[in-house]
Amino acid sequence: MKQYSQMDKAELSALKSELESAFSKHKEKGKKLNMTRGVPSDDQLALCNDMLTCLTADDYKSANGTDCRNYGGLDGIPEVKKIFADLLELTPDEVIVGGNSSLALMFDNVSVNVSHGVRDGKPWQSQGQVKFLCPSPGYDRHFTICNYFHIDMIPIAMGEDGPDMDEIEKLVSSDPLIKGIWCVPKYSNPTGIVYSDETIKRFAKLKPAAADFRIYWDNAYAIHDLGETKKILNIIRLCEEAGNPNMVYVFSSFSKVSFAGASMTCMASSKSNCEYIKQRLTAQTIGPDKLTHLRHALFFKDAANVMAHMEKHAQILRPKFKLVNDKLESHLSGLGIGTWTKPNGGYFVSFDSLDGLAKRVVALCSEAGVALTPAGATYPNGKDPKDSNIRIAPTFPPLGELEEAMEIFCVAVKLASAEKFLNA
Amino acid sequence: MKQYSQMDKAELSALKSELESAFSKHKEKGKKLNMTRGVPSDDQLALCNDMLTCLTADDYKSANGTDCRNYGGLDGIPEVKKIFADLLELTPDEVIVGGNSSLALMFDNVSVNVSHGVRDGKPWQSQGQVKFLCPSPGYDRHFTICNYFHIDMIPIAMGEDGPDMDEIEKLVSSDPLIKGIWCVPKYSNPTGIVYSDETIKRFAKLKPAAADFRIYWDNAYAIHDLGETKKILNIIRLCEEAGNPNMVYVFSSFSKVSFAGASMTCMASSKSNCEYIKQRLTAQTIGPDKLTHLRHALFFKDAANVMAHMEKHAQILRPKFKLVNDKLESHLSGLGIGTWTKPNGGYFVSFDSLDGLAKRVVALCSEAGVALTPAGATYPNGKDPKDSNIRIAPTFPPLGELEEAMEIFCVAVKLASAEKFLNA
Repeated sequence: MKQYSQMDKAELSALKSELESAFSKHKEKGKKLNMTRGVPSDDQLALCNDMLTCLTADDYKSANGTDCRNYGGLDGIPEVKKIFADLLELTPDEVIVGGNSSLALMFDNVSVNVSHGVRDGKPWQSQGQVKFLCPSPGYDRHFTICNYFHIDMIPIAMGEDGPDMDEIEKLVSSDPLIKGIWCVPKYSNPTGIVYSDETIKRFAKLKPAAADFRIYWDNAYAIHDLGETKKILNIIRLCEEAGNPNMVYVFSSFSKVSFAGASMTCMASSKSNCEYIKQRLTAQTIGPDKLTHLRHALFFKDAANVMAHMEKHAQILRPKFKLVNDKLESHLSGLGIGTWTKPNGGYFVSFDSLDGLAKRVVALCSEAGVALTPAGATYPNGKDPKDSNIRIAPTFPPLGELEEAMEIFCVAVKLASAEKFLNA
Repeated sequence: MKQYSQMDKAELSALKSELESAFSKHKEKGKKLNMTRGVPSDDQLALCNDMLTCLTADDYKSANGTDCRNYGGLDGIPEVKKIFADLLELTPDEVIVGGNSSLALMFDNVSVNVSHGVRDGKPWQSQGQVKFLCPSPGYDRHFTICNYFHIDMIPIAMGEDGPDMDEIEKLVSSDPLIKGIWCVPKYSNPTGIVYSDETIKRFAKLKPAAADFRIYWDNAYAIHDLGETKKILNIIRLCEEAGNPNMVYVFSSFSKVSFAGASMTCMASSKSNCEYIKQRLTAQTIGPDKLTHLRHALFFKDAANVMAHMEKHAQILRPKFKLVNDKLESHLSGLGIGTWTKPNGGYFVSFDSLDGLAKRVVALCSEAGVALTPAGATYPNGKDPKDSNIRIAPTFPPLGELEEAMEIFCVAVKLASAEKFLNA
């Protein structure tokens, strides 16, 4: 296997012709393959089909006697508050269970802090040009929220153990206009890395210049292990111990546990923060759909069953992640034209092409019918400074389609790389 | 029957003793009766119990093939968009079907107009101290939204045909800081009146000084007739015809059609407004729970069935509204100490005591175990200038309890009135 950088122009030219021919054949097949988003597959959704029918005509009361059909309740029925609390190692009064969208919980939380401020704080919008730290590559929809609220984004480099904590400590302690940071601490979107104990402890011990600085801890993949169950440290307890009890909002979701579009989500924080948030909820909503909560309570019963259920997801997902890695290994290994992650959980594989090729690779894939997340989406404002990061979302397509998509992806990477060296 | 105002002190004093004795007996029973909110009764909820079980394990696709279990879709599945469009006499692209809370739709809409502005408008918050017109008595939760966003509220008198349109036209055309008005056009909360054709036409023809003035048309009781079905004019079409196509947001809800806490709600506006709103929804949420939509689609099938279903609600509600009126008639008629409405639909009876007595009546009721909406709640900032309006919500208690509650209410009104004349 010869590295592309070692090839001369004649070799590269021959290679390019060969790759163009292979690429044309893929194009001719006219496939439509979608790997844009972290979406569960039909198989995964079917794991919960009993939830479609788990209520009988007599099942409408929660454990505390609440009629789940009627109005009432802002923070979830007791059964599901307990499930989330157990999974996150918290108490139920540190948990607010919401509707089907944790994105909505995050959006609302940022919105209210911009317009009204954190508990005992001033509106962020009254304090000047507010900024968030954005470990990158990261989750595009976090960045979209910042964009929507005109919050400046400062990219922070991601490493194997989490974001660059030296940089974060320096910035957070010196700039009172830095009001937040987005974190996906476990199986980070898209790199799949898990924050180390040391990283999480340093987060809890931050000494922000702004008393109203908040960590947005989006634990979207809290229980989404592909292999053995991995526990991360409890950020809420650590913040408490470090004298920062109100500094963190934790978000979690059953979107990739039960039904992606019809699940329940949760926000967790100090009891004091939760009380403050519930005051707003009184003005904002009649509360979440309690029948959906009840379905989850009846189907899952407790946290232990949830964990057992997640192993069924893992059984479906493991072959897909293996296939992606196998294809990348067999086609690209040793060529010096890309690196990629091999995550132990979560929903993504992160691929880094040679600098300047991510947009080209995504465009080539699109020509051949493979839809990928737009290049750059994993960086604030859609701007990947190296134009190298591509998020691969292997969960939705069936194995056969995923194989075809990865074949096309690998040819696209090779072709774009050959072009680059030829034009160098 | 002698009017209280005609009684001399001796008569009043004797009457007061008699009423105090009757009141004490009620208190001794130690009842807990709740008439605070417009909440459907168990009987009404049971009308939809088949919706708890209407999905089979194969029912998860909508008419257009969307898997309702998975992610995707911001404005509702086609079936329920059509049901709302048919009920409101609109087209599906003028309708966004949301989650279980129309309050949340209204809150979000005000929030975004404050922070970002209407389509092609500037943020309301950048334009000075913004105001809303508030026909009063009105719905307390509308006023709470204004309070939350620091929007000044200008009360507008309510008549038999709707709010005082002369006043509204004068204010809206002269003050560019008036950005909105809250309306419950049919069976208005709490007076139960229906806006006349003339009123609705005048709304559509408003010539606001502010290009970003918006009518918040909360058609919460659009199909909630107690007797014959009443149609009001189509405000969206009239606004279109008057050259104000984007001036109105219509809200509607199945909260009092299916399950109060687990229904679906809708926002309707011009196609252009809907498109603008959907752009924001992309940043804000993964979209509404489509399985809840599908349950509604399967249970109700079409608008005609919804209307037939509403007649079942009416059968349950008619005796309650009759009882309230009968009790008020038999106990208070001819005494000159109160007036009340006799609505043909909606969820409330509005009672006006003598000036200055609403708080006292509500407090007396509370002493005897009858919880009412706080006096003043139907006015902006909770301040009823006459302290006379009390909202009676007769839907939730069973008939027997409602009878007891109304007995207590009538004694409380008499006692408070006797006190007033004695102290005059």
